[in-house]
Amino acid sequence: MEADSQTFTRKYAADISSIKEAQQRIKSFAHITPVLSSETLDSFCGRKLYFKCECFQKGGAFKFRGACNAIFSLEDSQAERGVVTHSSGNHAAALSLAAKLRGIPAYVVVPKNAPKCKVENVKRYGGQIIWSEAAVESREETAKKVLQDTGGVLVHPYNDGRIISGQGTISLELLEQIPQIDTIIVPVSGGGLISGVTLAAKSINPSIRILGAEPKGADDAAQSKAIGNIVRLAETRTIADGLRAFLGELTWPVVRDLVDEIILVEDTEIIEAMRLCYEILKVAVEPSGAIGLAAVLSSRFKNNPAWKDCKNIGIVVSGGNVDLGVLWDYLNKGLL
Amino acid sequence: MEADSQTFTRKYAADISSIKEAQQRIKSFAHITPVLSSETLDSFCGRKLYFKCECFQKGGAFKFRGACNAIFSLEDSQAERGVVTHSSGNHAAALSLAAKLRGIPAYVVVPKNAPKCKVENVKRYGGQIIWSEAAVESREETAKKVLQDTGGVLVHPYNDGRIISGQGTISLELLEQIPQIDTIIVPVSGGGLISGVTLAAKSINPSIRILGAEPKGADDAAQSKAIGNIVRLAETRTIADGLRAFLGELTWPVVRDLVDEIILVEDTEIIEAMRLCYEILKVAVEPSGAIGLAAVLSSRFKNNPAWKDCKNIGIVVSGGNVDLGVLWDYLNKGLL
Repeated sequence: MEADSQTFTRKYAADISSIKEAQQRIKSFAHITPVLSSETLDSFCGRKLYFKCECFQKGGAFKFRGACNAIFSLEDSQAERGVVTHSSGNHAAALSLAAKLRGIPAYVVVPKNAPKCKVENVKRYGGQIIWSEAAVESREETAKKVLQDTGGVLVHPYNDGRIISGQGTISLELLEQIPQIDTIIVPVSGGGLISGVTLAAKSINPSIRILGAEPKGADDAAQSKAIGNIVRLAETRTIADGLRAFLGELTWPVVRDLVDEIILVEDTEIIEAMRLCYEILKVAVEPSGAIGLAAVLSSRFKNNPAWKDCKNIGIVVSGGNVDLGVLWDYLNKGLL
Repeated sequence: MEADSQTFTRKYAADISSIKEAQQRIKSFAHITPVLSSETLDSFCGRKLYFKCECFQKGGAFKFRGACNAIFSLEDSQAERGVVTHSSGNHAAALSLAAKLRGIPAYVVVPKNAPKCKVENVKRYGGQIIWSEAAVESREETAKKVLQDTGGVLVHPYNDGRIISGQGTISLELLEQIPQIDTIIVPVSGGGLISGVTLAAKSINPSIRILGAEPKGADDAAQSKAIGNIVRLAETRTIADGLRAFLGELTWPVVRDLVDEIILVEDTEIIEAMRLCYEILKVAVEPSGAIGLAAVLSSRFKNNPAWKDCKNIGIVVSGGNVDLGVLWDYLNKGLL
């Protein structure tokens, strides 16, 4: 057992120590987000649901935890030239905010099709925007040029141990807030969030179940687990703009070994979950943030005998950055 | 001083003892609501703002506190025939829910122009709806008939000591969560909320400031304070459907003696505050719930030398029951 435990802590990009260090590093900057519950929503799936509301985190998403940990991990000599990223969304805003708090510049390559409210967030937090075309290649190329020009440090949105450790602080908080949680449902995109949450939660309670929630139209994690290798898709089709990335080499091993299952979710189910979050929880939740609720309400989860013992379920509501007009449009399309 | 203190506890419909009793009575049913904060919003008014999010209370509004206290205060012999109310909104839903928890019927007289989501809430919680015309007279007459037919107990939405005591539990929680609060801003309608909040808060900290926030188009409380008598308006014009009621004889003395000032707010300011709640706090807030933020952002507050020492401000976000389509409509109209 001791050998196993040593292996466990060594073979992934983060562990309970690095996650606890991250918690100390970010605690004067990040919010301890509240956990909401609703008996109405509980009654829809016959379990107790605990919503860990990262939409109330600074920047409106969990991303601030990882970004803040990464930025405050840098040596002064590294930090002074600034940081660079080519995430289109919440990571970019979070990185801009964390950089502002450290007093260093953040250069953000943003594709032209990024959601308006996410671009506004980057601007609000003082990030310097460099526009690129929408394709990943264009974004990466533009970022490379910015790195050369500035001498800054690239902070990848998920394939980075400091980012994974920061996201893992969610589990430390959640399991202190609601100790009886036996299952956590986590959105899966590049895998930084689910890797951190899983490594922390399974270290605290090895029997806890971790289920990923992934859009059907961007199911690289489910496919990867099925065949045992990282799959990269030729294209993705989902309204969940935060869940279109693919697993990286640091996040894949955690998803492969420690995530119990990936539940696939249709966009229509995501939209219905967004409506329930708004109407019943009174919370603005972006598509990526609502996918966990969508997963527990799906028959694939509710009727699966493997999960009948999941009684107290933590749901990571990962972010709330959704333009109101876009939400209204989705709900109209989704319900009519 | 002792004489003053005795007078203080005797002459109002609730006091710190009845409020602490209410807290014990409702604690296994009501949520302890979280307090959110945002440095972005702080920067807009140069103070620290603490949002006491009653939109996350059961039923989506603070009203559950008072309704639950009232219903569980009833003797069994009174309770068994049920409760009756003619509130169109959150009180009706809250009373229905509390009645369901006690296992007694709730009869709710609802005017035909009530917001859809509020009627849905009444239905969701098992309240029995009796429709009436929109005018107050029609509502009161219908309620009288229901009382005769059922032998039930009328539970007034605000002019009732048990209701006022229940709402006062907000201050007990808030001042425990954020002890440094020096000012609380509270929406004013019939005055149940502000009476309870004021009696509890000033009992705990006599130097705390309590400011009411009232729509300009339903400014009966401001007019009442100005002339020293209860004013009832011939008509009201505001989008804040929860703030159209007038002070009652139990709430007026508290507003008259203990509320420091009423700040009047335009509907356009309420709409802007709803937008900020959605975009920055990520919270669905109804017009009545957003008025406190609107008040602190107004120049009448910010530039008033009387309030320059208000540094740590609690804002009671009273409810979140707003149809998404209505919110979208308001924001479009309000911003264009």
